[in-house]
Amino acid sequence: MNKKKIINDPVYGFITIQSDLVFDLIEHPYFQRLRNIKQLGMTHLVYPGAIHTRFHHALGAMHLIGLAIETLRSKGHTITTEEEEAATIAILLHDIGHGPFSHALEHTIVEGISHEHISTLLMDKLNKEFDGKLSLAIEIFNNRYAKSFLYQLVSGQLDLDRMDYLNRDSFFTGVSEGIIGFDRIIKMLDVAEGQIVIEEKGIYSIEKFLIARRLMYWQVYLHKTVIAGEQLLVKILDRAKQLALRGEELFATPNFAHFLNRKVSKEDFEQDGIHLQRFAALDDYDIYTSVKVWTSHTDLILSTLCHNLVNRNLYHVEVTNRQPAREQVELLKLRAIAKYGITEKDASYFVFTNSIKNNVYHVGDGNINLLMKDKSIKEITEESDNSNLLALSKTVRKHILCYSKDLK
Amino acid sequence: MNKKKIINDPVYGFITIQSDLVFDLIEHPYFQRLRNIKQLGMTHLVYPGAIHTRFHHALGAMHLIGLAIETLRSKGHTITTEEEEAATIAILLHDIGHGPFSHALEHTIVEGISHEHISTLLMDKLNKEFDGKLSLAIEIFNNRYAKSFLYQLVSGQLDLDRMDYLNRDSFFTGVSEGIIGFDRIIKMLDVAEGQIVIEEKGIYSIEKFLIARRLMYWQVYLHKTVIAGEQLLVKILDRAKQLALRGEELFATPNFAHFLNRKVSKEDFEQDGIHLQRFAALDDYDIYTSVKVWTSHTDLILSTLCHNLVNRNLYHVEVTNRQPAREQVELLKLRAIAKYGITEKDASYFVFTNSIKNNVYHVGDGNINLLMKDKSIKEITEESDNSNLLALSKTVRKHILCYSKDLK
Amino acid sequence: MNKKKIINDPVYGFITIQSDLVFDLIEHPYFQRLRNIKQLGMTHLVYPGAIHTRFHHALGAMHLIGLAIETLRSKGHTITTEEEEAATIAILLHDIGHGPFSHALEHTIVEGISHEHISTLLMDKLNKEFDGKLSLAIEIFNNRYAKSFLYQLVSGQLDLDRMDYLNRDSFFTGVSEGIIGFDRIIKMLDVAEGQIVIEEKGIYSIEKFLIARRLMYWQVYLHKTVIAGEQLLVKILDRAKQLALRGEELFATPNFAHFLNRKVSKEDFEQDGIHLQRFAALDDYDIYTSVKVWTSHTDLILSTLCHNLVNRNLYHVEVTNRQPAREQVELLKLRAIAKYGITEKDASYFVFTNSIKNNVYHVGDGNINLLMKDKSIKEITEESDNSNLLALSKTVRKHILCYSKDLK
Amino acid sequence: MNKKKIINDPVYGFITIQSDLVFDLIEHPYFQRLRNIKQLGMTHLVYPGAIHTRFHHALGAMHLIGLAIETLRSKGHTITTEEEEAATIAILLHDIGHGPFSHALEHTIVEGISHEHISTLLMDKLNKEFDGKLSLAIEIFNNRYAKSFLYQLVSGQLDLDRMDYLNRDSFFTGVSEGIIGFDRIIKMLDVAEGQIVIEEKGIYSIEKFLIARRLMYWQVYLHKTVIAGEQLLVKILDRAKQLALRGEELFATPNFAHFLNRKVSKEDFEQDGIHLQRFAALDDYDIYTSVKVWTSHTDLILSTLCHNLVNRNLYHVEVTNRQPAREQVELLKLRAIAKYGITEKDASYFVFTNSIKNNVYHVGDGNINLLMKDKSIKEITEESDNSNLLALSKTVRKHILCYSKDLK
Repeated sequence: MNKKKIINDPVYGFITIQSDLVFDLIEHPYFQRLRNIKQLGMTHLVYPGAIHTRFHHALGAMHLIGLAIETLRSKGHTITTEEEEAATIAILLHDIGHGPFSHALEHTIVEGISHEHISTLLMDKLNKEFDGKLSLAIEIFNNRYAKSFLYQLVSGQLDLDRMDYLNRDSFFTGVSEGIIGFDRIIKMLDVAEGQIVIEEKGIYSIEKFLIARRLMYWQVYLHKTVIAGEQLLVKILDRAKQLALRGEELFATPNFAHFLNRKVSKEDFEQDGIHLQRFAALDDYDIYTSVKVWTSHTDLILSTLCHNLVNRNLYHVEVTNRQPAREQVELLKLRAIAKYGITEKDASYFVFTNSIKNNVYHVGDGNINLLMKDKSIKEITEESDNSNLLALSKTVRKHILCYSKDLK
Repeated sequence: MNKKKIINDPVYGFITIQSDLVFDLIEHPYFQRLRNIKQLGMTHLVYPGAIHTRFHHALGAMHLIGLAIETLRSKGHTITTEEEEAATIAILLHDIGHGPFSHALEHTIVEGISHEHISTLLMDKLNKEFDGKLSLAIEIFNNRYAKSFLYQLVSGQLDLDRMDYLNRDSFFTGVSEGIIGFDRIIKMLDVAEGQIVIEEKGIYSIEKFLIARRLMYWQVYLHKTVIAGEQLLVKILDRAKQLALRGEELFATPNFAHFLNRKVSKEDFEQDGIHLQRFAALDDYDIYTSVKVWTSHTDLILSTLCHNLVNRNLYHVEVTNRQPAREQVELLKLRAIAKYGITEKDASYFVFTNSIKNNVYHVGDGNINLLMKDKSIKEITEESDNSNLLALSKTVRKHILCYSKDLK
Repeated sequence: MNKKKIINDPVYGFITIQSDLVFDLIEHPYFQRLRNIKQLGMTHLVYPGAIHTRFHHALGAMHLIGLAIETLRSKGHTITTEEEEAATIAILLHDIGHGPFSHALEHTIVEGISHEHISTLLMDKLNKEFDGKLSLAIEIFNNRYAKSFLYQLVSGQLDLDRMDYLNRDSFFTGVSEGIIGFDRIIKMLDVAEGQIVIEEKGIYSIEKFLIARRLMYWQVYLHKTVIAGEQLLVKILDRAKQLALRGEELFATPNFAHFLNRKVSKEDFEQDGIHLQRFAALDDYDIYTSVKVWTSHTDLILSTLCHNLVNRNLYHVEVTNRQPAREQVELLKLRAIAKYGITEKDASYFVFTNSIKNNVYHVGDGNINLLMKDKSIKEITEESDNSNLLALSKTVRKHILCYSKDLK
Repeated sequence: MNKKKIINDPVYGFITIQSDLVFDLIEHPYFQRLRNIKQLGMTHLVYPGAIHTRFHHALGAMHLIGLAIETLRSKGHTITTEEEEAATIAILLHDIGHGPFSHALEHTIVEGISHEHISTLLMDKLNKEFDGKLSLAIEIFNNRYAKSFLYQLVSGQLDLDRMDYLNRDSFFTGVSEGIIGFDRIIKMLDVAEGQIVIEEKGIYSIEKFLIARRLMYWQVYLHKTVIAGEQLLVKILDRAKQLALRGEELFATPNFAHFLNRKVSKEDFEQDGIHLQRFAALDDYDIYTSVKVWTSHTDLILSTLCHNLVNRNLYHVEVTNRQPAREQVELLKLRAIAKYGITEKDASYFVFTNSIKNNVYHVGDGNINLLMKDKSIKEITEESDNSNLLALSKTVRKHILCYSKDLK
């Protein structure tokens, strides 16, 4: 069987599968599961095209790392076939631990365990199944391999993961503000002193890249209505779990029920394989199907929240630079208590505050470095001809106040 | 509240909502349901980008009809604001009766009732809710309105529905063969003798349009692996329904169970509103979530088929010009009987034949007509300078033989 | 004859000609001349695709103003058909006074007269030919019409001229850094207090627009090699004119010879129609053909410079934040004197300094204003959530040192 | 100096220069000349974007041959670095012999010598300058090298030359009918029995490719107004040459005058190097500048024709399947004689007939072959499932009648 397939991709045209091992990993149920996990959670409520999946994103990042390696080799850097395959696998599997609706439910279904950690657990399991053939990939993924520039391609401030998701999210949302010159950036990549650097003349493309990220934050990732949809889903899961732990019956697939009926921590995951096995079968379908059924649940809070999500009656969201006034929040909560006949504690299902932030670029934490014509290396914010990049390196934090529209 | 929203669309840039009524229809749960119905069923198993929905397609067709009306007005044809809104609504709702996975399951979940008929039932129901404001739209949709060119824009051999789905399917699959010059075709539209016609100089764009359709048939809609995935889903539903009718217990949402546990015919739909109500809440989530759970069902046939779908172990499909040899089919069935220990009848879950066809253009059935420079009207196949278009008007029919890969 | 033609445009798809008058203006020799004037002078020496013309740009700007007017009308602002046609004509003709190679030769062929002024003279002439039908367009162009927002669409910090040239220059150079969300910006335009404003939620698109402009400056308009090519052309014209004024014979078309053999000032243009008539027949062909012939001229300086341009042996350019050291310049000039056996004065054909600047956005000079949700108006740099926009409003000025490569 | 430059290309993103030799050839004046020769002659009179040049096309074809070689190598075919460079050079230089306005003037400026033959002469000259380093490229170009599939990549029914010009002409004209899936075709290329073949599953992409070509013929290359413009230019050159041979004085650059004042045949080119040297300096500038000046020539026929071209007052063109009626032609000629006071012979400057044809695919002449799954080879028209491709292989020939609009 010929496993060197090509896959159509509306973003890049065609993606080629490099080796039999990579093909077999893509065919594995762990990876196929990503077909059913939307890359951007509930973003499609605002941008209807944004129904692309983690599956497609992982293939896209794999494609880009291939281009990057080709560039680095053409500039005289040695990367063996084994290293290439390992880096390819590392980026292919970097998101394998994501749960349903990606980031939206990351700390709701399970507790105290990040998707990166679950990725590591799943990679280890795959490594056993594949007789240790993923060992080098895992070393690179965990930055324990000597050529750390390979790690930086997988996970850094200018990695191919980010490059693909900006391209892809911009493409599927139709938000042209996110378009970056990824092909030019990749052609400008180089390695100096063992680290990934960018040729000096690539500075404007980097600037564009960082600004595109910033604009995507405000226009897509942190868009009010996106927040409203995702927070509503989180609140639904919170409520459902609370009811389940109390022993109430809830429609759910067996795998989803497993996580509704108990708290599962990082330690649990590491001690009993059943949790990982169950988790590796969960996807958007399990969750959203339940939400649809729960619209008829007897618990008023749960059914109201589910109704609101299914009928797109989302929270009203206010985004402010300062924390919302305590009086405003209290007033809204009192209205909720009165309207729904609920306790003060439960009022937080209808009225709550939170904060959001936007880190486009952190100086000091895996900087983006330029390789100057005189072969010296400079961090980008030192070089740019105005204060743009420095401005971008400041984290912007905002406050949000969410409440049901009927409390207005 | 401002309802003249604009919606980002990766295909056309922006789609504007024309009126309050249109906005309210889009917000209606019947229409929102289309967010969860993939336009191309299981095609994403071959083209991972093809996860676009009926929701987005309907908005796209609405956008294009707006452009067409603008063109016709600029050529001096009177179309009132009411007619424009009605035509817009007619095309917006033309697919509202589609069930889960669009065409794939059309005659499996319900029996003897087409999606067009369900669309009509739902439109009538909406018309009541909206106090008769959809009456003109329904007249146009059913071709009972005097200006029949409006009907042709909604449903004809050159309607905006087809134009959008070719654009959109081509865009999301990444199959550039399907690209058409839709904007040029629209600018060439005219009305003559009360019918939609194309200016003579648009002939090449029409030719491109028909050929693009043909290529999309063979490369996407009738792609072997797409057929394999859709047939597998159909067989799963067949088996599940058989088991359910026998009284076996099956995991399903209440709405889905409603259709699993009984046969629902066209007459049933018309006599008891409950069927329509249940149907209007069904989407891809109900079905696929059950398929995932059924992988652990005790019925070997059901669980095997579901396993095969979830793990993408699809049928092997042979496409031939002649019917497959009876001996070959029998041999495969005997293997299935031996392998799975099943009856001859049940062997057809693992081995079966069928036929597929590709009607790109039917002469005689709502022809595509050219408006010549001398103001005469000519049917396109009379005009083209070689036999291309005539060739395209022949239906191509092929035979398929599908069987589980483990029977090879 | 049907004059409502549509024109194919690779950037926007199709451009429609709105009226007979507009059609007749496009057909006029003054406007057709723009077919032979490259939008970006010598930029094609770096970006080979950048051979697009003023003709195409003017049509593109015309297309965009149509979209903008459609948006403003849909928001309830009255714009009559006459005003629309006038604004369309104003933007169509805004560049009609450009000479060969656009900005590159602006102050070389004629002296002390800007292309805007020549545009005005040509518009006045056309107005006579067309019996005063351009009067309103001219009022708008000169900002003497009451509805000054129409003027701002033609010429302001967010006019459709800039929007088209960013789109077009980015498209034809292939520099994706210049891509802007022009359709979104246009849909966000509004009029408040008689001025063009942008809806508050359009702030990110504006930011993208200004940054795209900045990046296009550094990556295209002020690219070293572009400067090198344009400066070389300027020096060639300087030398040729000097020789011609001295009475030496030079190959040239009669129209070009007219300007080589005499100094023509703003006053001359206004006093004698012959200058305008000659100018209105000049384009890139006249100039570059002469340059090719002059490669064999007996004047060593002229033929050397022409050889250098035709064979793409351009100046070496150094761009610095501070003025180049006087010693370095002197040393280079001495080398030129020695090498070519020329006077100190003539050495400046081979060694010279200059400065370049990049004004992306000027606060205080036709600001870009946001229309906030509370209906107040805010200048954009007050509103943005970081110092980006303020940074962009600072002019960046740099120094350049150019010299023949053989002096290195 | 680093010669491995990358060049921005709006069609493909970036084009990389592979070797120092290739870089030096691109920098050579012979190749730089192509910057000033429009790929599509006078087509820009209809499609204003079509001002792209032979220079850019040659670079594009070079880019595509690189992709094709990469694909063939990945399928196990050996292509040495020397062979790659030679094939790259062969395609880079395949059009180097084109004269001003490409095909439009091919048999007007010189007589009895094709652009391919001049290409060969120029390559031989370059080979001497570059010490024989082009020998292998020349062998491939002339199909004298053993691996004839390399020749087929440069010049065949599916060569990279055609693929680039369809992509590029479609892109710059904005005619989406010409879009082909070039990347898919290239990925489907293979070599069998020493010849270029296409994998069976690429059949639809080939069909699309041939149809795109056909549509481009009718919509662009043989568009009425394009013909009108190019025929006018040919007639101008005819007249000018006739006058020059008679001894009349005509404005022209020295290089152009060389060809106006004498007939230069294939034999002349081969016997005296001066002709090739002069030719290698001619481009669109020489011709069109003269046309502009000749609008004031004393010869009424020449000045009238030139006026007509510069002011876009082109011939009226009738395209018919049968030869135009002799009476119609005679009548028009008599009108011309009466109107302009000219001889019957000279009337043919204003009224003439000709024929055009469109060969999309020739069976029997370097067929396009499919590599079937069973490893057999089939010619494409045998395989396609309807008569489309066979229809395409018939040459369509049409007759044209051109005459000055004032004779209508």
